[in-house]
Amino acid sequence: MKEKTSGLTEALNRFRELARQIKHYEEILGVAYWDMRTGAPRKGLDLRAEAIGTLSAEMFRIATSDELGELLDRLSAPAAAEELGDVDRCLVREMKRDYDRNRKLPPELHKEYVVLTSQAEAAWETAKEAGDFPGFAPYLERIVDYNRRFIELWGVKDTPYDTLLDLYEPDMTTKELDRLFGELKQRLVPLADAVARSGNRPDTSFLEGTFEQEAQRKFSLYILEQMGFDFAAGRLDESVHPFATGLNPYDVRITTRYLPNDVTSALFGTIHEGGHALYEQNIDPALAGTPLCTGASMGIHESQSRLWENMVGRSLGFWQRYLPELRKFYPGKFDGVSPEAFYRGINVVEPSLIRIEADELTYNLHIMIRYEIEKMLFDEGLNVRDLPEVWNAKYKEALGIVPPDDAQGVLQDVHWSGGSFGYFPSYALGNMYAAQIMDAARRSLPDLDGLIASGRLTPLKAWLTERVYRFGKSLKPAEIIRSVAGGPLASGYLCDYLENKYKEIYRL
Amino acid sequence: MKEKTSGLTEALNRFRELARQIKHYEEILGVAYWDMRTGAPRKGLDLRAEAIGTLSAEMFRIATSDELGELLDRLSAPAAAEELGDVDRCLVREMKRDYDRNRKLPPELHKEYVVLTSQAEAAWETAKEAGDFPGFAPYLERIVDYNRRFIELWGVKDTPYDTLLDLYEPDMTTKELDRLFGELKQRLVPLADAVARSGNRPDTSFLEGTFEQEAQRKFSLYILEQMGFDFAAGRLDESVHPFATGLNPYDVRITTRYLPNDVTSALFGTIHEGGHALYEQNIDPALAGTPLCTGASMGIHESQSRLWENMVGRSLGFWQRYLPELRKFYPGKFDGVSPEAFYRGINVVEPSLIRIEADELTYNLHIMIRYEIEKMLFDEGLNVRDLPEVWNAKYKEALGIVPPDDAQGVLQDVHWSGGSFGYFPSYALGNMYAAQIMDAARRSLPDLDGLIASGRLTPLKAWLTERVYRFGKSLKPAEIIRSVAGGPLASGYLCDYLENKYKEIYRL
Repeated sequence: MKEKTSGLTEALNRFRELARQIKHYEEILGVAYWDMRTGAPRKGLDLRAEAIGTLSAEMFRIATSDELGELLDRLSAPAAAEELGDVDRCLVREMKRDYDRNRKLPPELHKEYVVLTSQAEAAWETAKEAGDFPGFAPYLERIVDYNRRFIELWGVKDTPYDTLLDLYEPDMTTKELDRLFGELKQRLVPLADAVARSGNRPDTSFLEGTFEQEAQRKFSLYILEQMGFDFAAGRLDESVHPFATGLNPYDVRITTRYLPNDVTSALFGTIHEGGHALYEQNIDPALAGTPLCTGASMGIHESQSRLWENMVGRSLGFWQRYLPELRKFYPGKFDGVSPEAFYRGINVVEPSLIRIEADELTYNLHIMIRYEIEKMLFDEGLNVRDLPEVWNAKYKEALGIVPPDDAQGVLQDVHWSGGSFGYFPSYALGNMYAAQIMDAARRSLPDLDGLIASGRLTPLKAWLTERVYRFGKSLKPAEIIRSVAGGPLASGYLCDYLENKYKEIYRL
Repeated sequence: MKEKTSGLTEALNRFRELARQIKHYEEILGVAYWDMRTGAPRKGLDLRAEAIGTLSAEMFRIATSDELGELLDRLSAPAAAEELGDVDRCLVREMKRDYDRNRKLPPELHKEYVVLTSQAEAAWETAKEAGDFPGFAPYLERIVDYNRRFIELWGVKDTPYDTLLDLYEPDMTTKELDRLFGELKQRLVPLADAVARSGNRPDTSFLEGTFEQEAQRKFSLYILEQMGFDFAAGRLDESVHPFATGLNPYDVRITTRYLPNDVTSALFGTIHEGGHALYEQNIDPALAGTPLCTGASMGIHESQSRLWENMVGRSLGFWQRYLPELRKFYPGKFDGVSPEAFYRGINVVEPSLIRIEADELTYNLHIMIRYEIEKMLFDEGLNVRDLPEVWNAKYKEALGIVPPDDAQGVLQDVHWSGGSFGYFPSYALGNMYAAQIMDAARRSLPDLDGLIASGRLTPLKAWLTERVYRFGKSLKPAEIIRSVAGGPLASGYLCDYLENKYKEIYRL
C-alpha cells in the first residue's frame, strides 16, 4: 500500500510538471498573440506566425504525448482518483478531456491550422479595412474546411455543430440553445417591437461630437481603477478588436479602441474587457500554472464582462456617481445632461449593423444571426462564398437593415479568422448567466444599487470573487450557476431584467 | 553516388528544420523578453520568468539533442561540406560551435540559470532604483558562480575570462585586448589630459532646462525615419535601459528613455539603437529563420550603433542639417545656437559617472574599468561583495570622480544581471571597428560629409548594407574588416578620428 502511494506521488508530480509545461507554452504564446494584435510591426507578422506555429506544435506534442496519456489513464483510474485532492482530480479530468480530443488530430494538421489562423487574422484586418470579403474568403474557406475535418476526427455529437459548441461551453447543445434562444425570442421580440413603436426615444444628441482620444484613454483607466482592476497585475492597450487575455493571474491584459466620434465605444468596451479581467485577476493563486487557471467556460467568462458592462456600467446608479467625473474629463460636454438623461441616452435601442456597438436588447439578435449561420456552415454545408449574401439577408430579416459593405457586415468580427466557430452563442449565454448571477448578488448584498450609486464597486467584486472568480475552471458552468443561483440556467432572469429596464426607459 | 547525395539532402533538410525550430524559440522568447522590459505588469514577472525558463529549457533540449549532433557531424564531414552551399556550410560551422559548447552544460544547470537571470533583471531594476547593492548582490553572486562553473565545463582558454570573451567576440583574447586597449590608452590619455587643460570648454548652457517628453519622442521618431529605419518592420518604445532586439529582419525593436532634464539622452540613445536596428533590418532575407540572421559579433554590432550615434550623429554636418529641425520640436529653445556651437556643446568632454552618457573620448575609459573588473572576477577570484569598493576606486583613479551611490556606480548597467560577462569590451571594439569602417566609407563615397550635411543619410546606409549588414553572421568579424578596410582591426583609426575631432573642438 505504501509502495503504491509513493508510485502515485511520483506519477502525480510528473503529471503536474507536464501540465505546468503546457501552461507555460500557453503563457508565452499568449504574449506573442497579444503583441501581434497590439503593435507588432506589420512586415514581421508572417514570420511571427511561423514561429508561433512551431511552438504551438511543440506544445501540442507535449499535450498529446504517450507519456501524458499514460499518466492520465493512471491518475483517472478509480483507485487513484480517490487519493487525489479536489484540484488534482479536476485537473486530471479537464486535461483528459483535452487529451482525448487532441489525440484525434494528426500533429501536422494541427500545426498547419495554427499557422493558417495566425496568418488569417492579419489577412482579416487588411480585408476589413478595405471591405474586401473576396480577399479574405480563401482563408476562411480553408479554416472552415479544417473545422469540418476536425469535427469528423473528434466525432459528430448530435449534430456536427454540437461538436464545436462543446469546445467553448462544455455540454451545450444545439437542442438546448434552440430552446433558450426560442424563449428569448418569444419575450424579447415583442419587447423590441414595443420599444420601436414607442414615441419615447431617449435623446442622444449629447453623445455626438468629437471626443479627444487622450481623454478617452484617461477615463478608461479611471473607470478600471474604480472597478478594482489591479494595474500592477495588468495593463490596458489599444487594438482594432478589443480583447482580454489572462497570461497568468498577475498579468491580465485588456484592450479597447478610441473612436474620435464615439465616446461610448471605448468606455463600455473598457468596462466589458475589465469584467473579463476582474475574473482572471481573482482566480485562486493555487490554480496558477495549471490549465484550471481560467474561466469556467466562455459563457461564464462572458457573463462577467456583460454583467459589468451592462448591469453595472449601463445602470442609472452608476451614472449618478460617475457622470460628474466624466464631465471633468470632457469639460463642457455634458454640463446640461442629467444622470437620468445620460442613462436613457446610453440605453437607446436602435437596430444597428455592428454587434459590439449594439444595445442590450437587440444584441441577442446579432448573436442569433451568427448562431444560425454557423449551424448552416457546419450542419447544412453552406458555402463560404455565399456568406455575405446570407449575412445581409438575415440582417434585413431580423433587424430591417442591410450592411452597405462587408466591413460593416460579414467582416466585422475577428472570431472566424481565428477559427472560433461555436463561440458566438457564449455571448447570449453570458447575458443569461449574468442576469441570473446579478439576481443572486442583489439578494445577497443589501442595497447593491445604493453601493453602485455611491461608487463602491468593490463589494460586488468581492462577492463575485467569492462565488465565481476564485474557482477558475475547477467548477463546471452548471455547478457555478447552481451554487450561486440555486437552479439551472434559465432565460427568464434576462427577460425580466430587460423588460423592467426598457419599460421604464421607454415608458411602456 | 546518387544515393549518397539524396541521403545528404535529407539530412540537410532535417538539419535546416531543427535550425529553424531553434530560431523560432529564440524569436518568441525574444518577444517575451522585450515585453518584460517595456511594460509587462510587475506582479506577473516571477511567473513569466518561470515560463521563459521552461521554454528556454525546451529550446536547449533541441539545441543539444543527439539528433542535431549526429546531423552536425555528418554535415561537417569534409565530403559533405564540399557539397553544401556557402550559407549551409557556414550555418553548420556556427551551429556546431554552439552545439559543442552547449553539450558541455547539464540541461538542469542551464534551466536554473535562465530562471535566475530573468529574475535577476527585475531585482536589478528594483535595486538600482533604491541604490541598494546588497539587495542585488545575492543574485549577482549566484550568476558569477554559474559563470565560473560554465567556464570549467566549457574549458579554460588561455585564461578563464578568455572563455567568456569568446562568447561575444569570437577568437578575441585578453592578450589581444590588453594590446589594443594599451594602444588606445597611449594616445587617448594624453589627448584627454590636453582637453582637460584646455581653456576652451564648449558652452553647454543651451542643453540645460526641461524638454517635454512627447517632443523628445517625436524627434526620436523623426530622426529614425531620416536614418532609413523601416517602421513597418520595427518599433520604438521606452525602457529603463535602452536596447535593440532583432526578432526577425522584419521586426526589429529598439527602446530609448526620455529624461525631462536631458535632451541628449533620448536623442543619442535613439540614434545608437537605431544603428543596431539598421543592421538587423538589412540582413539578407535569405538568412531569415537561421541563426546566421544576426550580427557578425557583438563588436561589429556595436560598431554600427556607435558609427551612427557618434560619427554621424555627433558630426558638424549632421547638425548643420538637423538643428533647424530640432528647433521646430522645441520652439524657442535653440534659437540663438549655431550648428557649430551645438556641435561643440554635444561633444563636450567631461569625466562622468555614467557610461551611457559619457563622451566619445572618456567612454573607452568606462569600458576599460569594466574590463579590468571582469578580469579580476574571473581570473583573480574577486568577491562580488567587494565590487562597489573596487568600482569606486577605479573610477577615482581613471576619471578622478567617485559615485555618490551605487545606483550611479556599480549598479548602473543591466549587463551583469543578465549574466553578460565579457560583453563590455565589445563597446570599445565597436568604437575601433566603427572608425575603421567609416574611414573606408569615406574613401568609397565621394563627399560623404556633404551628403550628411544635406540630410541624405541613405547612401551611407546603402553602402553599409552592401559591405556589412547583408552578410549577417555569415562572415566572421575579421573577414568583414578585412573585406571592408583591407586589413586587420587596428586601433589607429579611432585614435586619429578622436584626435582630429577634439583638437578642432578644443582648439588644441
